[in-house]
Amino acid sequence: MIGIIVSGHGNFASGLLSTVKLIAGEQDMVIGIDFVDGQGSVELKNNIKDAMNKLGDEILVLTDLAGGSPFMNSVLLKQELTDKKIEVISGTNIPMLLEVVLKRDDNDMKELMQLAKMAGTNGINIFELKEKQEEDYNSDDGI
Amino acid sequence: MIGIIVSGHGNFASGLLSTVKLIAGEQDMVIGIDFVDGQGSVELKNNIKDAMNKLGDEILVLTDLAGGSPFMNSVLLKQELTDKKIEVISGTNIPMLLEVVLKRDDNDMKELMQLAKMAGTNGINIFELKEKQEEDYNSDDGI
Repeated sequence: MIGIIVSGHGNFASGLLSTVKLIAGEQDMVIGIDFVDGQGSVELKNNIKDAMNKLGDEILVLTDLAGGSPFMNSVLLKQELTDKKIEVISGTNIPMLLEVVLKRDDNDMKELMQLAKMAGTNGINIFELKEKQEEDYNSDDGI
Repeated sequence: MIGIIVSGHGNFASGLLSTVKLIAGEQDMVIGIDFVDGQGSVELKNNIKDAMNKLGDEILVLTDLAGGSPFMNSVLLKQELTDKKIEVISGTNIPMLLEVVLKRDDNDMKELMQLAKMAGTNGINIFELKEKQEEDYNSDDGI
């Protein structure tokens, strides 16, 4: 199974993983790495590296934004740990994270990355009031 | 100034707002509403409504995913609180949230919504190793 690492500034990772836990339950092979005030980049990199070593040979890293320390250190580790297949994505949102966590069994890394990008992009929507949507959203049911 | 509400399942909101605080500092007129285990939809809706009343007449709600309780209750409040201009977006990620928080002063609601969607979508990227990027990301500098 492809391992998933979520990493971002502050409590980005633990926040998003709490969302996944509430919506889809506990997930195996998923590790969150927070990068909090007072930590340095070396500590962050070590934490991500430790997580990568726990997760095995295929790892998808979902980060908060391109260019930040969680993203950059993941990219550096992708280049250093050449015995592993590591991929790094930025701009993680919940539709993307749910997609990769729930579809790891049926897709290889290349497919999973495309699904991640598609789910993340398609999940970004501005609500517009239309007759059809009004019906859809007037229910109390939901997750 | 347009008020911002971030809301999602679990600690989505507090997680993302901790990221914004680390990257861009404390922000005015931004409220996070977590929807945690044990809370009901009525409590969530009241919490979002209270936040809307604190934030004034123009409010942009950034939610975790379409169809979930944070999204649906925000849409219901958009329909109920007709004296306010309320807009609701799903699929929130950090590039989107930073964009709206930092560009509220120079844009009206319609522009800000489009900027949010564009920043969120453009912020989703799969890292690809190219000669140019290798140079860019081999630096220790970063945020």
